[in-house]
Amino acid sequence: MGSGGYLNYKMEISYDGTRYYGWERQPDKDTIQGKLESVLSVLNGTSVEVIGAGRTDAGVHARKMTANVRLETELSPEGIRDYMNHYLPDDICVNKLVVASDRFHARYNAMGKLYTYTCYVGEEKPVFDRRYVTVLDFSPDVEKMREAAGYLTGTHDFRAFCANPKMKKSTVRCVDSIEILRKKDRLYLNFHGNGFLQNMVRIMTGTLLQVGEGRIPPERVREILEGLDRREAGPTAPAKGLCLMKVDY
Amino acid sequence: MGSGGYLNYKMEISYDGTRYYGWERQPDKDTIQGKLESVLSVLNGTSVEVIGAGRTDAGVHARKMTANVRLETELSPEGIRDYMNHYLPDDICVNKLVVASDRFHARYNAMGKLYTYTCYVGEEKPVFDRRYVTVLDFSPDVEKMREAAGYLTGTHDFRAFCANPKMKKSTVRCVDSIEILRKKDRLYLNFHGNGFLQNMVRIMTGTLLQVGEGRIPPERVREILEGLDRREAGPTAPAKGLCLMKVDY
Repeated sequence: MGSGGYLNYKMEISYDGTRYYGWERQPDKDTIQGKLESVLSVLNGTSVEVIGAGRTDAGVHARKMTANVRLETELSPEGIRDYMNHYLPDDICVNKLVVASDRFHARYNAMGKLYTYTCYVGEEKPVFDRRYVTVLDFSPDVEKMREAAGYLTGTHDFRAFCANPKMKKSTVRCVDSIEILRKKDRLYLNFHGNGFLQNMVRIMTGTLLQVGEGRIPPERVREILEGLDRREAGPTAPAKGLCLMKVDY
Repeated sequence: MGSGGYLNYKMEISYDGTRYYGWERQPDKDTIQGKLESVLSVLNGTSVEVIGAGRTDAGVHARKMTANVRLETELSPEGIRDYMNHYLPDDICVNKLVVASDRFHARYNAMGKLYTYTCYVGEEKPVFDRRYVTVLDFSPDVEKMREAAGYLTGTHDFRAFCANPKMKKSTVRCVDSIEILRKKDRLYLNFHGNGFLQNMVRIMTGTLLQVGEGRIPPERVREILEGLDRREAGPTAPAKGLCLMKVDY
């Protein structure tokens, strides 16, 4: 296992994305990948590349982002994890770090992802988790949202739900399930699929919320999907309500 | 009810105290009382005084601070509440607002208060509620903490647990109960009493945590209490772990 003295490590990471410009490394901007790589490059003595299961947008959170990284170090996996948590800011945490097969690749091997979009639908204000929820000023019709979500489930061309209008690669994806739950003053939208296009979860959420508000009927979502035109879909829901919950391998 | 066109209103307020200089109004500083009064003074057309059940320190949170205020307005209680929530920042919320008896005084009529101090005792980092918990780097001995807490329960002179060494008024208080609970990766200290001195909950917490860490034996807490000397007690635990949970009337 490992080439040279290197080992391949798999890690699960949580982060509060509020103050970051997303996952992907960018010059002169705080990003999650950038923070992880800068801490690990010091540990490793040379620059390292952290490969994430995917890229989250600016302001999006994660409870279990998965990534892999090759390191040459004498530290144990627990030692690496503790080192990272010590030097990472308090809004990023490595929850788990283990030695993986040399062939493990966090992006290529990802089989599915679960995202949860959380809305606050109460009478008050979400004072303590205001950074992690989007406040709705209407009481959504959950049954209608579920009906509309049914049209989005399955394998479809999701071009209408992709932020990049010039996307040249396939925009076909399989959404296994969309679960919509109302629990007390929270509305949760759980999206499970094999992969999502740029902003796809947030555009689906924005569209489903328009259904929940009664602005468009559920059947309209099928037409939007079939029209393949981003301009027909709803707005992109705010980043702060979105969280990557887990990645399947 | 009411004098002139004024009515006395009782309200319950939650706030994330992170960015405030505490409850009490101060010139040129953001405080909770200051924010409430500034919003209500606009509504009322003249300056108003919001009377809180007590003062929380800088950085301390509340889930149900109680306050009263006299207002002359044509808005209904729900209307006042909605107005306030609209103009207050998103880290302060008025959860409830009702017309009270003209004699109701949030401070004088307060019979008891419940404060909860929350510590994180897990292996990871509390990424999503890091502003509301204090991270411990040891696993506390809860049984010893409970034994020590027993010495603090009841009516005592708490001078050793008061931040103000020149306190001229009585430092006798009654602490009805101190409950110490470990739930998964959280340690909760619930303090119920008829009133607390300046920093008293945080100094009791700092002292009990020293017992939990094994730095001082439980019996030492009785000596500290009897010694009436602040310097003998433990450190003042950080503000961010403390939250005023409710006020009894």
